[in-house]
Amino acid sequence: MKQPFEKRELKKKSENLSDWYTDVILKSELADYAPVKGCMVIRPYGFSIWEKVQEIFNGLMKTKGVQNAYFPLFIPLSLLEKEKEHVQGFSPELAIVTIGGREKLKDPLVVRPTSETIIYAMYAKWIHSWRDLPMLINQWNNVVRWEKRTYLFLRTTEFLWQEGHTAHETEKEAMEMVLTALDWYRQVYEDYFALPVVYGIKSQSEKFAGAKATYAIEALMPDGKALQAATSHNLGQNFSKPFDIHFQNREGKEDFVWQTSWGISTRSLGGLFMAHGDDNGLILPPKIAPIQVVIMPIFQKDRESVISYCGQLKEVLTNGGIRVHIDNREEPSVGRRFNEWEIKGVPLRFEVGQRETTDRSVTVARRDTGQKVTLTRDQMLIETEKLLVTIQGQLFTKQKEFLTKNTHDVDSYEGFKKIMETSRGYLRALWCEDAVCEAAIKKETKASTRCLLLETKNEQGACIHCGKAATHRWLFAQAY
Amino acid sequence: MKQPFEKRELKKKSENLSDWYTDVILKSELADYAPVKGCMVIRPYGFSIWEKVQEIFNGLMKTKGVQNAYFPLFIPLSLLEKEKEHVQGFSPELAIVTIGGREKLKDPLVVRPTSETIIYAMYAKWIHSWRDLPMLINQWNNVVRWEKRTYLFLRTTEFLWQEGHTAHETEKEAMEMVLTALDWYRQVYEDYFALPVVYGIKSQSEKFAGAKATYAIEALMPDGKALQAATSHNLGQNFSKPFDIHFQNREGKEDFVWQTSWGISTRSLGGLFMAHGDDNGLILPPKIAPIQVVIMPIFQKDRESVISYCGQLKEVLTNGGIRVHIDNREEPSVGRRFNEWEIKGVPLRFEVGQRETTDRSVTVARRDTGQKVTLTRDQMLIETEKLLVTIQGQLFTKQKEFLTKNTHDVDSYEGFKKIMETSRGYLRALWCEDAVCEAAIKKETKASTRCLLLETKNEQGACIHCGKAATHRWLFAQAY
Repeated sequence: MKQPFEKRELKKKSENLSDWYTDVILKSELADYAPVKGCMVIRPYGFSIWEKVQEIFNGLMKTKGVQNAYFPLFIPLSLLEKEKEHVQGFSPELAIVTIGGREKLKDPLVVRPTSETIIYAMYAKWIHSWRDLPMLINQWNNVVRWEKRTYLFLRTTEFLWQEGHTAHETEKEAMEMVLTALDWYRQVYEDYFALPVVYGIKSQSEKFAGAKATYAIEALMPDGKALQAATSHNLGQNFSKPFDIHFQNREGKEDFVWQTSWGISTRSLGGLFMAHGDDNGLILPPKIAPIQVVIMPIFQKDRESVISYCGQLKEVLTNGGIRVHIDNREEPSVGRRFNEWEIKGVPLRFEVGQRETTDRSVTVARRDTGQKVTLTRDQMLIETEKLLVTIQGQLFTKQKEFLTKNTHDVDSYEGFKKIMETSRGYLRALWCEDAVCEAAIKKETKASTRCLLLETKNEQGACIHCGKAATHRWLFAQAY
Repeated sequence: MKQPFEKRELKKKSENLSDWYTDVILKSELADYAPVKGCMVIRPYGFSIWEKVQEIFNGLMKTKGVQNAYFPLFIPLSLLEKEKEHVQGFSPELAIVTIGGREKLKDPLVVRPTSETIIYAMYAKWIHSWRDLPMLINQWNNVVRWEKRTYLFLRTTEFLWQEGHTAHETEKEAMEMVLTALDWYRQVYEDYFALPVVYGIKSQSEKFAGAKATYAIEALMPDGKALQAATSHNLGQNFSKPFDIHFQNREGKEDFVWQTSWGISTRSLGGLFMAHGDDNGLILPPKIAPIQVVIMPIFQKDRESVISYCGQLKEVLTNGGIRVHIDNREEPSVGRRFNEWEIKGVPLRFEVGQRETTDRSVTVARRDTGQKVTLTRDQMLIETEKLLVTIQGQLFTKQKEFLTKNTHDVDSYEGFKKIMETSRGYLRALWCEDAVCEAAIKKETKASTRCLLLETKNEQGACIHCGKAATHRWLFAQAY
């Protein structure tokens, strides 16, 4: 006989972050390994968080008139090859369909790793005049970049994302779009995931294959490693020229459009799950939690009155816009079910027994701090709302403190190496902007350039590695 | 220089349905051909209709507790082969990935044509006891079934759909789910698409590969051909046995689960576009139309007051929950823009000129009938709501009349053939239920069995083709 998954023995975050991360994702039923190498299954609990991200991001995109559409999964290899740097960057990661309808294909089809080429072939057809611009299109889809080993959410062959693709009359307008998208990502991470980010421009060697410049937001994980959470690219005219996306401008002359693309994927959820959480399981920020309150009826004798009272509480909370679930299962034991909801990271647990039913009250336990308070039914809705806001804020503050504490200016390579061997974190160091130097630092310390923060001021100094002249302090970190 | 798409010369529905259908889909910007054989691009206007279907169907599924999840795009060929009838049915249509990450794959990966096998491999892992049942999971995704020629929406290699997959303790419960899903599809088609459907069980030769029985809803197109709009399958234990999805039942014994799967795809939108509409373009039923009202400011002199008045109208309608767009482009001409919105099938056009602005009124033109009425600003919201309801109802009634008029009982094969050569439509005829006879009828008349209507009563008679004993009157039609 098959054995149900053992939920109690969760691995400890305080002992091994990576083991805990995989274990908590499986046991909270966010996701599971699939019977296909490199792939995962996103289970309903995890998928409902992704649906929340979609809802939030669709709302943000709507403010600027970005519209959703759908482009094909398959890209003819010949089309992908039109932008040289682009195909070079992606070719090691491609999955290729060579057989279709029992026949060998003459022009093999690439399973999209990203959709610039197929979308821009259409833009060339659709864009004629400045009146057609800006063209602001997004798609939510699945993309494939070959991986041999799965790291749940963080590294999978197939992942879900959105990819925004815009075309503009001027580079100035395109740059505004690049930064607007970057700020939308910052909002998703900071305002919903309760994770502070840094954001800036990537170095030439770290940029998107085919972009003129790549901007990214990055979050810091509990082990001091950075996670690139989303990227936004200024494509310049790098694609519009080979794809011949030209238009008649306001002066009646032909010009090539200026383009951007930007994306956030299910990878970003990995950061959310890894950053918060403790030895007891996930801790989901209330704004993104599929269930914000779990109501646990605890029976001694008068089962019906407890159940009925729980139903009333649920109705009040639901009408107040709070996402509630009543757990009235008879098995497993109450203690075991408490553990399950802790593993799942539900922000608030309402305990309702005979006493609470008689008193018209409820005992509320916070997932993040473990604190318990008793609320009367009359004050319940408003106090619950306050608690959810408080938790959201405190989770962010805690992460912000962690980020600040683990961001250092360093001016000696010895100091740089020492920190990378111990606590890690972000190091702000002068770098000469030579890719050779960047590669050497990465080889010696595992730390890569993460970005040049947008607000970074010019500085005169020596590169931390080679000592040559450097003008900017870049952000370095080891990264996922 | 590129030429903008010529919008005015729309092909006539009254002359050639098929030419009109393709032309109106391209010119209304619902979709476009992609630079990949067999594939299409769903443009923002078309995709927003699909998003509406998703919203409606998510709402219906929620009433029964079906949850969304995501399973991998790729299925190892070895997994697909576990259910013999299933793999036989799909193997002519498969797209197969043989190269991944620059290496030839030992076990080639099939791009999912449907996800029974990959999902049920997970169900075997997740289901242990009757307490885990019913398991009710749905996914919205893309699937691939090889096609050489594209017929926009109706036949494409890749299409979007939802696939629901459920597991139950008993066959009775599974059958309830099969019929519930079928009724959800009926609701989507009848209540939103304004298209009456017939629904029933498919013949053995027309059923889903691997199912015990397939149920379908079908709509009748203007040329008298049927369109299978959605299907719902009773899988029995056909998959749970080879995939070993067993559970401990309430009596403590091991049993295999009873399963269902059901889907509706972007193909269903093809029926929506083809059925309604006339020589001037699409006619979208208000409940599914992305834009229900287009406001057209018509300037003579006092441009600002007209624009400002249009803004007020939009605000009132939007606050009333109506989807509104103001077309204040300066080009092309007003007449040309009228044509554009007619092609796009927007249910109501509001014309607002100097006179309307001064009178605080609006001139409203109906897309379906061309009728014009003048509304005062005070009665505008309520009258617009009424008009939208009226249009929705009248579109349905018109289609219902067409369906009734084109459904005939026939008792002679000569009569059967004659109708199939002329007006087509649904023919209800006695059939012996022998697949050989079914194939002969199809070869001779192009008409296939569509379904056995659920309410069909037993009858004693002779098969319309071979004259052998027959007990049921089946529905026959030529089909897309």
